Amino acid sequence: MPAAYQTAINYLKTNRPRFLDELIEFLKIPSISTDPNHTASMLVAAEWLAEKLNRTGLENTQIISTQGHPAVYADYLHAGPHQPTMLIYGHYDVQPPDPLDLWMTDPFSPAIIGDHIYARGSSDMKGQILASIFALESIFKNGSLPVNIKYLIEGEEEIGSPSLSALLEDNRQLLSADFSLNLDAGMAGPDLPTIVTGLRGLAYFELTVYGPRQDLHSGVYGGVVKNPAIALAEIISGMHDSSGKITLPGFYDDVIELTAEERRQFSELPEDDYFYLVQTGAPELFGEHGFSAAERIGARPTLDVNGFISGFTGLGSKTIIPSWAKAKISTRLVPNQNPVSVRQSLESYLNRHAPAGVTWELVAMAGGSPYLAPDEIPGRQALISALKSVWGKNPIFKREGGSIPVVNEMKTILGIDSLLTGFGLPDDRVHSPNERLHLPTWYKGIEALVQFLYNLSNHKD
Amino acid sequence: MPAAYQTAINYLKTNRPRFLDELIEFLKIPSISTDPNHTASMLVAAEWLAEKLNRTGLENTQIISTQGHPAVYADYLHAGPHQPTMLIYGHYDVQPPDPLDLWMTDPFSPAIIGDHIYARGSSDMKGQILASIFALESIFKNGSLPVNIKYLIEGEEEIGSPSLSALLEDNRQLLSADFSLNLDAGMAGPDLPTIVTGLRGLAYFELTVYGPRQDLHSGVYGGVVKNPAIALAEIISGMHDSSGKITLPGFYDDVIELTAEERRQFSELPEDDYFYLVQTGAPELFGEHGFSAAERIGARPTLDVNGFISGFTGLGSKTIIPSWAKAKISTRLVPNQNPVSVRQSLESYLNRHAPAGVTWELVAMAGGSPYLAPDEIPGRQALISALKSVWGKNPIFKREGGSIPVVNEMKTILGIDSLLTGFGLPDDRVHSPNERLHLPTWYKGIEALVQFLYNLSNHKD
Repeated sequence: MPAAYQTAINYLKTNRPRFLDELIEFLKIPSISTDPNHTASMLVAAEWLAEKLNRTGLENTQIISTQGHPAVYADYLHAGPHQPTMLIYGHYDVQPPDPLDLWMTDPFSPAIIGDHIYARGSSDMKGQILASIFALESIFKNGSLPVNIKYLIEGEEEIGSPSLSALLEDNRQLLSADFSLNLDAGMAGPDLPTIVTGLRGLAYFELTVYGPRQDLHSGVYGGVVKNPAIALAEIISGMHDSSGKITLPGFYDDVIELTAEERRQFSELPEDDYFYLVQTGAPELFGEHGFSAAERIGARPTLDVNGFISGFTGLGSKTIIPSWAKAKISTRLVPNQNPVSVRQSLESYLNRHAPAGVTWELVAMAGGSPYLAPDEIPGRQALISALKSVWGKNPIFKREGGSIPVVNEMKTILGIDSLLTGFGLPDDRVHSPNERLHLPTWYKGIEALVQFLYNLSNHKD
Repeated sequence: MPAAYQTAINYLKTNRPRFLDELIEFLKIPSISTDPNHTASMLVAAEWLAEKLNRTGLENTQIISTQGHPAVYADYLHAGPHQPTMLIYGHYDVQPPDPLDLWMTDPFSPAIIGDHIYARGSSDMKGQILASIFALESIFKNGSLPVNIKYLIEGEEEIGSPSLSALLEDNRQLLSADFSLNLDAGMAGPDLPTIVTGLRGLAYFELTVYGPRQDLHSGVYGGVVKNPAIALAEIISGMHDSSGKITLPGFYDDVIELTAEERRQFSELPEDDYFYLVQTGAPELFGEHGFSAAERIGARPTLDVNGFISGFTGLGSKTIIPSWAKAKISTRLVPNQNPVSVRQSLESYLNRHAPAGVTWELVAMAGGSPYLAPDEIPGRQALISALKSVWGKNPIFKREGGSIPVVNEMKTILGIDSLLTGFGLPDDRVHSPNERLHLPTWYKGIEALVQFLYNLSNHKD
């Protein structure tokens, strides 16, 4: 390690209070990409980031317009052509905070309680973005950066990145790199630094079932029409069989079965059933028979109802037969499934099984294919060493249940793989009320990234 | 008929424009009993009615407090002890207007379009109440009323009349009568004056299914917990079998099967399948196999989901597994079912069939038993003659699908039967957006009520 390394580490330790202040400032911006009422906040967040990147020492900073929310770009390309170029990906948008009444604190007024900071986006992923920027700042302030860096921070990840492929296509040259660093993948526990080697894909749908032309009096008309809420319930309940398998025709056709070696790796993960019981607070676990919880999350496709609504749902009683019922239904995909085939499976299921007396309409929303990282991805060894150095143990390697559509887009359009890690924890309540970030882990993450950046220049693999 | 009869009829014809103005005034008051934000409007409506009854010539007008919304009482008891005493029942509360965006006009800014007036409560049942008051006014202004009248107009019918039984118990003497006239039952068509001889009961429930402690990320946790929205869908879809029969254990135990004679009467009703297709706008009809549409509505119990909600239902996509799911579920009951047994049936079903991995909570809400009117009910012949005279044909007799809990309460507590009729039409969109009242039928109704009141003094049956 160069002499600058230790001064950089000292710098980041001294500057923790200011890092925290800047994180709080960033978290206050309600950059909710799915909500049309927050379009202005999205731009505020993008401009805040661009300015921060500039102040840190990055160059060519630009806010790139898209069909939706803008993306932020910046680079530092002075390490020379023999040093690797790493594209750091991030997203500055956050999930909507609802249900608001379950938050202990205001989701956009960050609150520090014990070792955590509570705010929407703290873990997913404004904290992760700033960890990388603070790591760069610590290096820039104490020497020179030994590798080439590009940043691409989009504003549409939480709505399925609809503008991302066009953005990558239109900026292939600008974004060219040896590999991408993606800090949106998190770690398995505060003492378990993690490199994620696989991600599930996503196919998300909105299904609407239509019955009578208007809401009907349930006394005057109860008994003559098919109730669309009941019809939708029948459709949903038929999507799994009694062993937890998904019944959509052809749904499993493209699924690659787990090898014995993969099952062994899964069995060594720290997450057992008790872990998931504690994390979810569910009365008991449930899933596809014949697979462990970790396998079901990492390597098996799943189907969930993300929400549904029909008729009267207010206080008291209203005696109607609703005119329609709607559900958000999403599937998580594993190699080699893809969203297009899954849509066909779902349509085929609906054609066969939607009950008589109603009509239905299916809209395909956000989607993305699953991903498996190659062992030879650049930067892997540099990251392993950095994590091992800071945490004192080797990182674990795991396939993750979530979906990060950009990983596939980068592979397909830019031809690069993604090194997936991060400093979010399983109990950060990502996408849930009371999202939080564990500050001791965050500080360790900044330190690990400083070391990773130095390692990278020694390990052009 | 006395000479005053013809002058009363002339009076009501001359005064139609003013009657309409007063109806508009009454309809403007948003007396939505289920909505705590409209408590003040409930009192305004009660006071408006009390003043109108006073001005009409009724006496002892009082607003009777209850645990919930107040009721309005008034009487005229000067026809002498040998004339019958009729208790006219009504309710001044209305259904909530949602979904608001489906209304062509503001639900509380009455609009006259063609032969209809459009407003929430126009048909159910502010128009019906005023029809009876205008009939009395027409008689009072042109002579004397030959029968004794009491009015009881409650403010909680649309929320299941929770204070009604206490109200009747506490005022047994004040409300004593020979029978009740209830104009909340409507008619089968504009040319089909109708006397309703039976009503279905109601048992209404709110069922909540709980899964994980909080909303979970559907990627990070999809595959390890039972999704409560899917669990609720499974619970709901199991409540009917493939022949449209309800599967709750013991649900049909108390149902009296239709006799051959009753089925003959049903077959003579004008409402055929085509009628219900047009009225509901459903793609096709659906119901319990082996019964006609009119039989299913009038004489068979039904179960409907009145609404459900879970998770994310806004614009866009949010990738969560919801923490809970809730449904409003109601059953319509026929003789001799009762809400208490039905609750036991539902609980027994849930105990046997709720899936593992979730917990559930059942709350029983509004309820009421079914009703069959005796042939010898007082006033029946007077009403038949009046309807026949105004419409030129005999009324039809039918069992109705709706529930009017007060009818049973009056039978049980006051010991009186209810003469069920009214001037609402099947296409008035009661409980739906764009509720309306057919004005030519309403004017005929006022005339029929004048004649009925005169007939009544001749037909003390």
